[in-house]
Amino acid sequence: MKTISSRDNPRFKRLRKWATQHRARRDDGVILLDGLHLIEALAAAGGELQELVLSESGAGRPEIAAWVAAHAGIELLQFPDAMFGEVAATDTPSGILAVAKVPPQPAPRADVDCLLLDGVQDPGNVGTLLRTAAAAGVRQALLGPGCADAWAPKTLRAGQGAQFLLSIHENADLAGFLGGYRGTGVVTRLDAARSLYETPLDGPLAWVFGAEGQGVSAPVAQAAKLGVFIPMPGGTESLNVAAAAAVCLFEVVRRRGG
Amino acid sequence: MKTISSRDNPRFKRLRKWATQHRARRDDGVILLDGLHLIEALAAAGGELQELVLSESGAGRPEIAAWVAAHAGIELLQFPDAMFGEVAATDTPSGILAVAKVPPQPAPRADVDCLLLDGVQDPGNVGTLLRTAAAAGVRQALLGPGCADAWAPKTLRAGQGAQFLLSIHENADLAGFLGGYRGTGVVTRLDAARSLYETPLDGPLAWVFGAEGQGVSAPVAQAAKLGVFIPMPGGTESLNVAAAAAVCLFEVVRRRGG
Repeated sequence: MKTISSRDNPRFKRLRKWATQHRARRDDGVILLDGLHLIEALAAAGGELQELVLSESGAGRPEIAAWVAAHAGIELLQFPDAMFGEVAATDTPSGILAVAKVPPQPAPRADVDCLLLDGVQDPGNVGTLLRTAAAAGVRQALLGPGCADAWAPKTLRAGQGAQFLLSIHENADLAGFLGGYRGTGVVTRLDAARSLYETPLDGPLAWVFGAEGQGVSAPVAQAAKLGVFIPMPGGTESLNVAAAAAVCLFEVVRRRGG
Repeated sequence: MKTISSRDNPRFKRLRKWATQHRARRDDGVILLDGLHLIEALAAAGGELQELVLSESGAGRPEIAAWVAAHAGIELLQFPDAMFGEVAATDTPSGILAVAKVPPQPAPRADVDCLLLDGVQDPGNVGTLLRTAAAAGVRQALLGPGCADAWAPKTLRAGQGAQFLLSIHENADLAGFLGGYRGTGVVTRLDAARSLYETPLDGPLAWVFGAEGQGVSAPVAQAAKLGVFIPMPGGTESLNVAAAAAVCLFEVVRRRGG
C-alpha cells in the first residue's frame, strides 16, 4: 500500500482529473467504481481492476480491509479522507474506489432482445433503465447520441452493476440498427392503436424509449415497426421513462413464463 | 407586478428561507412549484396559488407571459435572474415559481388501493413512486417516518403533479394502518413462495415498498399479509424501488382490464 498525502502527486492529480472531467475519463477509456458493491459486480463479471484507492477511514472498516486482503496483487493507494473526497464519485464517500477499463463490447447483434435509448439525458434514468433491462434478462443496450454516458459515476451507481452484464453501444445509430433488426422494434406511444396488454409480442424485441418530454425522435420511432400504449387508468398521461420501461420489459417476462 | 431587487427585501428573504431550509418550509405548510407544468397541475387539481414569482428573463418568455396574463389576481413578484436563481428549486430555473399551501388531506381510508412507502429516503424515488401510483389509478399514499418529504421541490419535480392527485399521509404508522386495512397488504420479497404473476390479487390492495438495501422493516412486512416475488430471469436480484413498484402496480392495471 502506498500512502499519498500531497495534492501534487501525479497519481492523485490523474484520479482527480478523471473524477471531475467526464471527457478526460472517456478519452482514457476508464471507469471509476465507488464502493464495494460496484467493485464486486465488476469482479463477478470477470472485469479487471487496475488500481484500488482507500480513504484513511475506509482502510479501517472491517469489510473493506477484508476485501482488500482477499484481493492482493491489485495496486493499492491510500489518501487522507479530505483528498479521497475530492476523487470520490458520491457525496457520501464509501471509502474505497477502483479504477478499471471500460469493458470491451462485442459488435451489436441483430437477433437478440435489446433496449434502445434515444436522448435519455439523465444519468440516473439511464442507469435505472440498464438495471431494469439486466433484471429482465435483456443483454444488449444501444444508446443514441445525446444519452447520458453509460459509464459515468452517477450512471454506474444507478445501474448497480448492470453495466457489466450488458453489451452497451454508445453513440449508436438507432434508426439504422432498427432497419437491420431481425426481430420487432417496439415504441410506446400515447396514440398507438393497441395497448401493451393486447399486442402480440413474439420473437426478439428491441424496445425504444426516449427522453421525457420530447419522447422518441421521429426517424427512430418510424424505424420501430410496432407502437403500443401503456394504459393509465389514473388519467395522467405519463410515466417516468424508467417506470415505463419496467412495465414493458416485465410484461415480456410475464408472457415468457416469469 | 412588484419588482424586487434588494436581497434585504423581506419577501425575498422569506422565499429564500423556504427554498433552502426544508424545516422552515414544512413548518409553514408551504410548497414551492418550479415551472409552468407543476403550477398548471396544481391549478387543474383545484389548488390555490398564493404568490407567483418571475425572473426577469422568465417574464419575457411568451408562454410564461401568456399564463400570467390569463391568471390575473394572483400576487406577482419579479426578481432579477441572479436573485431568482437563489430561490428556484432547480439548477436550470424555469423562470416562474409559485408558492402554495400543502393541500389539506382527508383521513386515510382503509378500503381503497394504496401505496405504502417505508423508509424510501431519495426524493426522486418518492416522486417517481407517487407518479407511477397516480398513473395506475391509485389515489392514496402513506409514507412512514424516514421517507423523503413528499412536498419538497425535488420530490414535486419527480412527481410531475402526482402529489395533487393523491391523498398523501406522511409520518404514517404503516403497520398500524395495515392492521386495520380491509383489503390485502402486499410486499415484494425475494423469498416469497409465489411470483407476482401466479398470485391472485383481488379487492383493494395496499402495496408496500421499502428502502433500497434495507427493504421493508420487519414489523411492516409482517403486517402485510401477502408476499410475492418479481421473477428476474436476468439473474440479478434487485430492481430500483420505483421500477419494482411500476411492475407490480401495472400488473394490477393489466388484470383489471388495462
